[in-house]
Amino acid sequence: MNWLDEVAFDERGLVTVIAQDAASGRVLMVAWANAEALAETVAAGQAVYFSRSRGRLWRKGEESGHRQRVQEVRLDCDGDVVLYRVEQAGGIACHTGRASCFYRLLRDGQWQAVEPVLKNPELIYRK
Amino acid sequence: MNWLDEVAFDERGLVTVIAQDAASGRVLMVAWANAEALAETVAAGQAVYFSRSRGRLWRKGEESGHRQRVQEVRLDCDGDVVLYRVEQAGGIACHTGRASCFYRLLRDGQWQAVEPVLKNPELIYRK
Repeated sequence: MNWLDEVAFDERGLVTVIAQDAASGRVLMVAWANAEALAETVAAGQAVYFSRSRGRLWRKGEESGHRQRVQEVRLDCDGDVVLYRVEQAGGIACHTGRASCFYRLLRDGQWQAVEPVLKNPELIYRK
Repeated sequence: MNWLDEVAFDERGLVTVIAQDAASGRVLMVAWANAEALAETVAAGQAVYFSRSRGRLWRKGEESGHRQRVQEVRLDCDGDVVLYRVEQAGGIACHTGRASCFYRLLRDGQWQAVEPVLKNPELIYRK
């Protein structure tokens, strides 16, 4: 049995993927993958997602350089969430230039940005 | 502005929630929440989800006793994933009796269960 057959893709052929920093344990980001993205991730050892907005594979870091070397791939009990444990190039996963996309903490009834911008996004994404 | 207004609920009124062990950093599980579940989580300091299968709020641990005390609630950059950082009662988050739902590791082209069952699920859920 192919390991991809045990992944419970949704009606769009997608599965939720969490990227976690393998060293710090920090949750970095959440995105989607289709079967092709998972297969390429495993074959290449680099995180690949499926971008719904672009309608194509998204090789993380293809524009930003912030690639993710994948150390482990895990699957949850009901098969509909995949976990990539990664080494994050540049220490930046978020398009805002922060280490993690989960930089807003609920405090006193408000979302507060509690992590610094490590690099100006205009510098990350300019050609 | 109410903090709930900044959460990007989907067309069903749901948002993806990741529960992470605050001490170990382990990703424990992924589930859904609606606005009511998020509000109760914050008010009670205990993780509440929305069970799609049961069509109602799911106060984690209501049957198993494996409650989750919520230390932090975070929101990702595009607002559609919430992160609960929790203390996991009993050290078991998964209905299989394991610490985490992400107990299957891809190794040699197969998903391998690499974490022990800490408690027999029949003992967790019997009335």
